[in-house]
Amino acid sequence: MHAVGVDIGGTKIAAGVVDEDGELLESTIRPTSAQEPELIEEAVADAVAELRQRYVIGAVGVAAAGFVDPGRCIVRFAPNIAWREHPLGEILAQRLGLPVVVENDANAAGWAEFRFGAAQEVADMAMLTVGTGLGGAIVVDGQLLRGAAGAGGEVGHMRVVPNGRACGCGHDGCWETYASGTALVRETKAALTIEPERAERLLAIAGKAKKVTGPHVTQAAQEGDPLSIQMLADLGRWLGAGMAALSAVLDPAVYVIGGGVGAAGDLLLGPAREELDAQLFARGHRELPEIRLATLGNDAGIVGAADLARLPR
Amino acid sequence: MHAVGVDIGGTKIAAGVVDEDGELLESTIRPTSAQEPELIEEAVADAVAELRQRYVIGAVGVAAAGFVDPGRCIVRFAPNIAWREHPLGEILAQRLGLPVVVENDANAAGWAEFRFGAAQEVADMAMLTVGTGLGGAIVVDGQLLRGAAGAGGEVGHMRVVPNGRACGCGHDGCWETYASGTALVRETKAALTIEPERAERLLAIAGKAKKVTGPHVTQAAQEGDPLSIQMLADLGRWLGAGMAALSAVLDPAVYVIGGGVGAAGDLLLGPAREELDAQLFARGHRELPEIRLATLGNDAGIVGAADLARLPR
Amino acid sequence: MHAVGVDIGGTKIAAGVVDEDGELLESTIRPTSAQEPELIEEAVADAVAELRQRYVIGAVGVAAAGFVDPGRCIVRFAPNIAWREHPLGEILAQRLGLPVVVENDANAAGWAEFRFGAAQEVADMAMLTVGTGLGGAIVVDGQLLRGAAGAGGEVGHMRVVPNGRACGCGHDGCWETYASGTALVRETKAALTIEPERAERLLAIAGKAKKVTGPHVTQAAQEGDPLSIQMLADLGRWLGAGMAALSAVLDPAVYVIGGGVGAAGDLLLGPAREELDAQLFARGHRELPEIRLATLGNDAGIVGAADLARLPR
Amino acid sequence: MHAVGVDIGGTKIAAGVVDEDGELLESTIRPTSAQEPELIEEAVADAVAELRQRYVIGAVGVAAAGFVDPGRCIVRFAPNIAWREHPLGEILAQRLGLPVVVENDANAAGWAEFRFGAAQEVADMAMLTVGTGLGGAIVVDGQLLRGAAGAGGEVGHMRVVPNGRACGCGHDGCWETYASGTALVRETKAALTIEPERAERLLAIAGKAKKVTGPHVTQAAQEGDPLSIQMLADLGRWLGAGMAALSAVLDPAVYVIGGGVGAAGDLLLGPAREELDAQLFARGHRELPEIRLATLGNDAGIVGAADLARLPR
Repeated sequence: MHAVGVDIGGTKIAAGVVDEDGELLESTIRPTSAQEPELIEEAVADAVAELRQRYVIGAVGVAAAGFVDPGRCIVRFAPNIAWREHPLGEILAQRLGLPVVVENDANAAGWAEFRFGAAQEVADMAMLTVGTGLGGAIVVDGQLLRGAAGAGGEVGHMRVVPNGRACGCGHDGCWETYASGTALVRETKAALTIEPERAERLLAIAGKAKKVTGPHVTQAAQEGDPLSIQMLADLGRWLGAGMAALSAVLDPAVYVIGGGVGAAGDLLLGPAREELDAQLFARGHRELPEIRLATLGNDAGIVGAADLARLPR
Repeated sequence: MHAVGVDIGGTKIAAGVVDEDGELLESTIRPTSAQEPELIEEAVADAVAELRQRYVIGAVGVAAAGFVDPGRCIVRFAPNIAWREHPLGEILAQRLGLPVVVENDANAAGWAEFRFGAAQEVADMAMLTVGTGLGGAIVVDGQLLRGAAGAGGEVGHMRVVPNGRACGCGHDGCWETYASGTALVRETKAALTIEPERAERLLAIAGKAKKVTGPHVTQAAQEGDPLSIQMLADLGRWLGAGMAALSAVLDPAVYVIGGGVGAAGDLLLGPAREELDAQLFARGHRELPEIRLATLGNDAGIVGAADLARLPR
Repeated sequence: MHAVGVDIGGTKIAAGVVDEDGELLESTIRPTSAQEPELIEEAVADAVAELRQRYVIGAVGVAAAGFVDPGRCIVRFAPNIAWREHPLGEILAQRLGLPVVVENDANAAGWAEFRFGAAQEVADMAMLTVGTGLGGAIVVDGQLLRGAAGAGGEVGHMRVVPNGRACGCGHDGCWETYASGTALVRETKAALTIEPERAERLLAIAGKAKKVTGPHVTQAAQEGDPLSIQMLADLGRWLGAGMAALSAVLDPAVYVIGGGVGAAGDLLLGPAREELDAQLFARGHRELPEIRLATLGNDAGIVGAADLARLPR
Repeated sequence: MHAVGVDIGGTKIAAGVVDEDGELLESTIRPTSAQEPELIEEAVADAVAELRQRYVIGAVGVAAAGFVDPGRCIVRFAPNIAWREHPLGEILAQRLGLPVVVENDANAAGWAEFRFGAAQEVADMAMLTVGTGLGGAIVVDGQLLRGAAGAGGEVGHMRVVPNGRACGCGHDGCWETYASGTALVRETKAALTIEPERAERLLAIAGKAKKVTGPHVTQAAQEGDPLSIQMLADLGRWLGAGMAALSAVLDPAVYVIGGGVGAAGDLLLGPAREELDAQLFARGHRELPEIRLATLGNDAGIVGAADLARLPR
């Protein structure tokens, strides 16, 4: 059965036809209007209709940031769109005349990597999407972990430092305040106020300290910039430290790292690996979890959502 | 089908017949000899044989401290007994002529509470056994979380304070160094060196600082001892803080608290509840997890192991 | 001998005549122009000239934010004015034909409290000025601690939490990120995103969360607002914790608390006192340091600078 | 004037004649009996009498672990000897017919390094003695910092990690639980349980993990043992981090490192230097403090106590 996956992001809606092998056969894009939720549904319906002109579609999966209820229908809360206890799945199902499943976007992407990407052959995995925040998806014995109320897998908000850095969620010390693209940029800017002499290459690339981005840090590090190398290593170590905590709880066989930081390669993954090993509980008596880069890139949300829509419920 | 559950502890082996409703029909006890593993198998076989004289037994479940392989047969590592990659399940199965399942003891106890005890009606729960260490068992969507290599659910070794208290596992800052009976006693003794004047009742009960035990602290707290009340509250808050971290990852509906500290009641659970609420991610947009005391007491390991032995694999 | 004290702030210059008993006899004010340092010198000269019309002045003391060299003449670095290795004392001395001493503003205020204010009768004290940041001044055996390069007493930048909150100085975990008016407001705003229902009074006073100020929190706390009370108590505990660390190093007899937070009274000082006592090293074998509120208010900088100008060098 | 310095340690009393240039002209030793304080006074008197046979002595300085009152006469509290508010100075003065000054042993050693050792030419310094604990001595503008009640300079008990490692003083997270010989050995033993394969050289030297000592770690590190190198570097970084905190408060020109760890040389001092620089407040606008090894070795206590006895009071 072919299914359509829809990824509702902050600036655009991407929809695509996905076959049972996880291949994305065709896709289309619509702009998002976060202020007017009904326009989002309009745009999703329009995109699906376009794809149905050329494919027979059996189900639709929708990925969106936020908490989704255990029935995979209601968006309980979305950080960027004015949805509160919003029956998105039902509305779309009625509109489209097709079964619709809604899933958290990080979960959808993780599911795609589990089914068709970097962690296909294992039963227990966790995906960490390092971006603005730190998104998570957890697969336990082949099943996506959703939690009692659909709020599971929010690993970025696991506290790793009591009284630590301030998080946008209102709490302190959340993992994502140490292990995210946002954290990388903020810490690099802070370090630039202290040690600009160690970051000549970075400053040349970015123009000035205020304009530094994550890709700038990665490029500069690859060109040997000492401060940038240190900043990526710090990020890597925080990723590794959090993974060690997760391994005590979940013991996954594989961690899949998604998001743009994958471009940093071993400059990031080396320190992550070392810290994970160093902090891992009882590491002499277990297999070490693997760390792998995600393979599906930006399509993961579409592919995962489509595949979840095909699952029996 | 009746099954026998066997709980192999540090000083004794307890075995019992458990029916399909989780009732413990009859039990028997043998002393443990940690130094001679083959004597343990002897004793288990003997206890099961005794119980089979009066019951028809279809399967045997064994609970033991340590890591058990995903096939639930091999003890990969035990902290207290000289088992390393030891095929305990196979040895016992051959000896008894019955199917045998081996499970980590905290997992077995948690499974019992999930199936027949404090968390029967939910699908997602976590049990925390507060004793010498902090044991954990996690149920995700009705399945016991075991992890890729059988090392899941070791929540006591999730790091909650970087560079924190020294743990017996060789790492620093593990949750159980803050939230266990051992931590309670150690912190209380430290506090007694600083503020003995706030613990007159406790010192009267214990005789002297060196002899303080967890039950002493609980009793003194219940009798109004200010220091003991503070110590239980500190323990409760660390429990709550770790639960909040777990909720970000797992989102269970219920936390079941086992171990002797339950006797402290609200002196412990009140602060735990407050800290969990205060630290919970996105608490305005989700159900708050419940905290409940375990109901099965010391039989939980036997009952859970027996029940797991009946499950299809 | 009468001396003039000059306090160069971010928005205004205040100058006053101070007698040998620390009495401020007359004062005058000029606006500050941070962008044009020479205008500052002009304004200081003008203000001093005005005061000399009515008083015989023997020396001038200038208080300014920043590092001042051991010779008390050169401003090595100022956070708000473009002074770098600037011989402010010499320039003013030439211009005025009077001996001029320059001192860090927190040091000047602390010296005033030591000589004429809250800590007159002791030889060892520390003043903590809780404002935008956390300023410090230390008196050891009757002498103002300046440090080898004039950078002593910057207690707000003592790290109290590794990997803690981000500080404007580029480092993490500085004391002032936990114990300052800025920290109070930021933490209160974060708490308001989580628990607005506990701060109805505060929200009524401030209008909305974004507009909350330190005085709002103090007022709401005094009117019983639960969240505001908690926030002041948190601030107090961080003050106390840092004081305990300072006591291990300095063992002062008195801590003087300056800045607007004094208005919070025991809502702040109670928790500070408790935490200081709880964390104090070897408290059973020493005198407990006292905590007192500053008594000289905004005049402290003028009074202290003037008095320092009279000291033999 | 010649003075006698007496260093009362846990196992022996060492006394020596010190001239005005800090030269130790002759010394003698007596065993200590911690249980019988009066025997200590007996032994001190005996040792001084022996030295007076060949030298004209004008004063006696006594160094001992513990708090000494501001008058430098009364031992308020000693950790190893049963002195509580004990007028040691007066008793000895009467017995000897000489002026006697008592000082904390770390203070005495620091004073010796300031006057005749590694930090002779500066006015502001701090000495850190890395041994069983972390002892401190602070000199501010040429004066020994004693504190209001004689409890200053106890830098080892400055908290550097909230909820950190348990300290013998009853508190958590004291600097000395991270930066002392005891911490080095304990952390190394913990690491050996996790990564023995990285410490083959260390294990060969020590025989087995349980027998590891600080000198073993230093020797193994110097012979290239990876774990030992890491352990010394960790110790060094904690020293550096604490020094950065101290610099915010005290701004000394020089840190003098005493105790056996000096043997580790750059394996320790390199990481200490790096961390101090990395954490130093406003390091672009100040001189960096120097780190130097102590030069007076075990005689520092005797020399410093003798010299303090000569100072006018």
